[in-house]
Amino acid sequence: MDFATLIGILVGVALIGGAIVMQGIESETSFTVFAEPISFMIVIGGTLAATAIAFPLKEVMRIVTILRAVLKGGKEELGGLVDEIVDMGTVARKGPKDLENALDQVRNPFLKDGLQMVVDGYSVEEIRDILGTRVEYREERELMESNLLKAMGKFSPAFGIIGTLIGLVYMLKGMSAEGGGGDMASAIGGGMATALITTFYGALFANLFFLPMAEKLLSQISSKSTQQNMITEGVCLLQMKKHPLIVREKINSFIPPREWKRMEPGGGA
Amino acid sequence: MDFATLIGILVGVALIGGAIVMQGIESETSFTVFAEPISFMIVIGGTLAATAIAFPLKEVMRIVTILRAVLKGGKEELGGLVDEIVDMGTVARKGPKDLENALDQVRNPFLKDGLQMVVDGYSVEEIRDILGTRVEYREERELMESNLLKAMGKFSPAFGIIGTLIGLVYMLKGMSAEGGGGDMASAIGGGMATALITTFYGALFANLFFLPMAEKLLSQISSKSTQQNMITEGVCLLQMKKHPLIVREKINSFIPPREWKRMEPGGGA
Amino acid sequence: MDFATLIGILVGVALIGGAIVMQGIESETSFTVFAEPISFMIVIGGTLAATAIAFPLKEVMRIVTILRAVLKGGKEELGGLVDEIVDMGTVARKGPKDLENALDQVRNPFLKDGLQMVVDGYSVEEIRDILGTRVEYREERELMESNLLKAMGKFSPAFGIIGTLIGLVYMLKGMSAEGGGGDMASAIGGGMATALITTFYGALFANLFFLPMAEKLLSQISSKSTQQNMITEGVCLLQMKKHPLIVREKINSFIPPREWKRMEPGGGA
Amino acid sequence: MDFATLIGILVGVALIGGAIVMQGIESETSFTVFAEPISFMIVIGGTLAATAIAFPLKEVMRIVTILRAVLKGGKEELGGLVDEIVDMGTVARKGPKDLENALDQVRNPFLKDGLQMVVDGYSVEEIRDILGTRVEYREERELMESNLLKAMGKFSPAFGIIGTLIGLVYMLKGMSAEGGGGDMASAIGGGMATALITTFYGALFANLFFLPMAEKLLSQISSKSTQQNMITEGVCLLQMKKHPLIVREKINSFIPPREWKRMEPGGGA
Amino acid sequence: MDFATLIGILVGVALIGGAIVMQGIESETSFTVFAEPISFMIVIGGTLAATAIAFPLKEVMRIVTILRAVLKGGKEELGGLVDEIVDMGTVARKGPKDLENALDQVRNPFLKDGLQMVVDGYSVEEIRDILGTRVEYREERELMESNLLKAMGKFSPAFGIIGTLIGLVYMLKGMSAEGGGGDMASAIGGGMATALITTFYGALFANLFFLPMAEKLLSQISSKSTQQNMITEGVCLLQMKKHPLIVREKINSFIPPREWKRMEPGGGA
Repeated sequence: MDFATLIGILVGVALIGGAIVMQGIESETSFTVFAEPISFMIVIGGTLAATAIAFPLKEVMRIVTILRAVLKGGKEELGGLVDEIVDMGTVARKGPKDLENALDQVRNPFLKDGLQMVVDGYSVEEIRDILGTRVEYREERELMESNLLKAMGKFSPAFGIIGTLIGLVYMLKGMSAEGGGGDMASAIGGGMATALITTFYGALFANLFFLPMAEKLLSQISSKSTQQNMITEGVCLLQMKKHPLIVREKINSFIPPREWKRMEPGGGA
Repeated sequence: MDFATLIGILVGVALIGGAIVMQGIESETSFTVFAEPISFMIVIGGTLAATAIAFPLKEVMRIVTILRAVLKGGKEELGGLVDEIVDMGTVARKGPKDLENALDQVRNPFLKDGLQMVVDGYSVEEIRDILGTRVEYREERELMESNLLKAMGKFSPAFGIIGTLIGLVYMLKGMSAEGGGGDMASAIGGGMATALITTFYGALFANLFFLPMAEKLLSQISSKSTQQNMITEGVCLLQMKKHPLIVREKINSFIPPREWKRMEPGGGA
Repeated sequence: MDFATLIGILVGVALIGGAIVMQGIESETSFTVFAEPISFMIVIGGTLAATAIAFPLKEVMRIVTILRAVLKGGKEELGGLVDEIVDMGTVARKGPKDLENALDQVRNPFLKDGLQMVVDGYSVEEIRDILGTRVEYREERELMESNLLKAMGKFSPAFGIIGTLIGLVYMLKGMSAEGGGGDMASAIGGGMATALITTFYGALFANLFFLPMAEKLLSQISSKSTQQNMITEGVCLLQMKKHPLIVREKINSFIPPREWKRMEPGGGA
Repeated sequence: MDFATLIGILVGVALIGGAIVMQGIESETSFTVFAEPISFMIVIGGTLAATAIAFPLKEVMRIVTILRAVLKGGKEELGGLVDEIVDMGTVARKGPKDLENALDQVRNPFLKDGLQMVVDGYSVEEIRDILGTRVEYREERELMESNLLKAMGKFSPAFGIIGTLIGLVYMLKGMSAEGGGGDMASAIGGGMATALITTFYGALFANLFFLPMAEKLLSQISSKSTQQNMITEGVCLLQMKKHPLIVREKINSFIPPREWKRMEPGGGA
Repeated sequence: MDFATLIGILVGVALIGGAIVMQGIESETSFTVFAEPISFMIVIGGTLAATAIAFPLKEVMRIVTILRAVLKGGKEELGGLVDEIVDMGTVARKGPKDLENALDQVRNPFLKDGLQMVVDGYSVEEIRDILGTRVEYREERELMESNLLKAMGKFSPAFGIIGTLIGLVYMLKGMSAEGGGGDMASAIGGGMATALITTFYGALFANLFFLPMAEKLLSQISSKSTQQNMITEGVCLLQMKKHPLIVREKINSFIPPREWKRMEPGGGA
């Protein structure tokens, strides 16, 4: 569970909600004026409609899956993975049979597939090529999901403004029909307040939901690629039967020095 | 048929239309105030004029073809294509004669051309070079079409604002001529409402039509390139007479693991 | 002559002009209010001044040449060029002497230079290197021209707003001096209308002239590069004495399949 | 200590603060009107909430560390580093034993690790590969930190506008409730002033803190990469036992000619 | 001296100044209302403060040097440089001794360093590597200077708006304090005019100074890189003892065909 995302959403909603309530009390107006179903419908409906036009149906259908993935986050533990790869390297040096037996303990599916290729006797070039293509096209597919959220973050304020324009036109037409006078100010104020709420919805949804989530997805994609590139490198070194010390040195270069674990004396080799 | 696009357009139009009608009823103004032929002319005419300047004539003429392609969408079925390539690999291992006979069943024209090159005895480098160039320049041509729609999505709100400025200038000049007074508010309201409708048109067309369609075209281009890169790789592996198990493993790396089909026992080889 | 550009400009100007006249009639105001020499001077003068600062003098001097090139457009006829290269390939297989004699019929200067290198006995690597560098640096020089137009498209609305701010400041100061009253509305209206015309000019010039022309230049650059890359590839294949069928297959990969011409039976080889 | 950052912040705050105080005196209004806790809460709280959603928890937690790093800056002294590498080259030519003894004097940890690899007998390709991967992934990790600050610089004005919209809606509703009259202007003025302060906060924090700091971080990342690439190149040349004159010539190419130090006569070799 | 830059600045300032004076006369208001020291202080001071935070101190200190470089421009004369390199090629073919004697006549320091390496007997790979690294890192350093000006072009309008917001808040508070009435319009007009002048300053400085100068710097960087890449290529061809005709053909590919000079008969070889 990625608590940062959840906490961010809760704090953000509480904060904006609190500001609305507090300013409502201050100006002696009920905060319920912010509940405008038509505004909500224009912003969310319009955004979803534009998104359905902009992306393949199957991506749009996966939006709940994507949001859940964003919320769930990913465990990285690159340091632990380094240990696991180095350990597997020690096993691999004994023989492919031993490696095959050890495969059941591997939980990371990408590492498992890579080690299976070592067992199956694929060449280093084939392993690097196949795993590299998998990383490249996984990235491309996931970038489309991030783009979907980013597009929602652009459509949302646009439909907010479109909704506000609709409200403004009616307000101005009404002003034109009534003629001037004391209660015109009243009509202007009311109409414009309602119109602006659509802009408010559009800006809020974009900046508190869609855009931050698109950004989170981007960083999840990038950290998954780091992990998979490290695994690819590690599996290739295994196939080349490199000494565990060199394997550790090489794949440590993917992670920050402060997370490095040095080989325990007499450990790996 | 890409139903997402169609549904998106219908829902989007219904939603904005519905919001206009509902707010019209609420404010006791006829929704017909939103039908402004001059505004429509400025936005659509200006956008088309700018597009005709910005792109080669033959691209502009193809705009209907492009929009139809966006609406029609593309069948991908990458999983099925993997099977077809692997099957062809089994055939190719028998001999070029058998492959030539099997060519008639291949529907995908790109795969067909690639297999024809295998039959004609082109080298792996030549096949990769020729097919790779085709993918590269197809992408470039189609990106121009996507850019055309994206440019329309930028010109459309710009001409919306230009139209609004025209309306505002006349309204303000009129206000200047009449002098102040009660009915000035009426003149301002009416003139400004009409002026804002052009902005509304520009924003709506951009965000409900041009920009989402440009985005959809982009994702169609990208998924077609994935497909063609996979075919190129597959055809090269065929020419190298690789074992069907390796062919499947390699080209599976282009598609998400959840769509992988494993070789049926005793199937391919 | 690139008629799309010309038609686009004429239609765009007629359309915006027509809208101005029609709305002028409707609001009983003369459309001559849109002729503001100071606004024109600020937008066009400011844009040119900023452009003179932003680009090398010799590029700024070439602006008329550039605009004429945009208007003239380029003949592409990639299909015909494929035929010409394949024909030259048939000639080249006879001997360098025959190729030298045939050079006079070649109109495309880039192709002519490439074939001359074949006659002069340059190696394939040298040809690819020299022609490739020419394409790369021609692109870079022409991109600067496109950037110049794009920069004008950014400066133009900026100076529009700067001009409007000047007008607004005087209008507001005037309002401050006169004090309130009925004729203040008149002063506001008149001053603001005039001020907004500068914004109108800036937005119009950018979206009807500078930005679309920058875009057209970009697509001309890209299509010229496709042509020159195809020629480079073709000339290299000629120097390698490849069979005309392979030459056609390879350079056909630069153009869309619907423009391919197949070798007439018994034709090339 | 990076005094530019500190001076920039102090000068910026003093300047904006001074302008607020001076204009307050001029308009006979207390500058305390700019202290709006709710506005501050919306902008800073909203920005932090969106950032917590947008980035991994561990990055968000490190924000203080990041800001401190920006403030502290980095010593570069590339010229001195060139000398140090060249000196080490002279030592390395004596033998790995001498190099190992000299390692203790090396302060730069990246250079130390590189020299250790030379002592340990890694090949040039392995050294280049391992150090290159470290540079690449360090850059990627630090770019995320810069992106975090840049995202705060985008969210901050967005929440400024969201806060202003909340204030405007209440002000307009209040105007609608009261009806017209002399004291309506008073209500509008007060409400709108308060509403605009949130926009002011959002714009100020973005342009005086978040965006400039993101930019500073970017240039720190880039100058650290230049340094590490220079070290990588130098260590490889050491392992190749190149002559100190060539080592100096080569790694001098990373720094501006005006910072070059020429070899003292009879110095290095 | 780059006269385009100087002329652009003079014309731009004269034009905007002229427009201010002319509109001042027309609206019977002194143009001195545009001299607002506080506005100037907020825009220039705020921009400099943000820039000091955003860039390393030593870059900020060099801002005058950078601006002078932009004003001075660079002589390119690529055609003449081609001649010089070809001439040096003829000398180099005689022997390194002759080349060493000819070095004194070479004014371009980059060419001189390259030829010195030929004299010193560096290999082609070493020359290409060393000169290539110099070009790459010179570009990177100069891009930071261009980014500094571009950042000033972004901060300048932002602080313009921040200053305007300060003015608006006081104006609105004042309006709230005074209550409505005839002289309220006067107060609004005066306050708002003063507030808008800050926006005017911000937009003007950005679009007439910072952004065009950043752009000019960019094109100077790019044309210097073209020059240095051409020299690198030429020096490598010299070291390979290529025939002057081929040297000319190859390095001519860096410059536009219309600037080519053909070898005078019996000239180079």
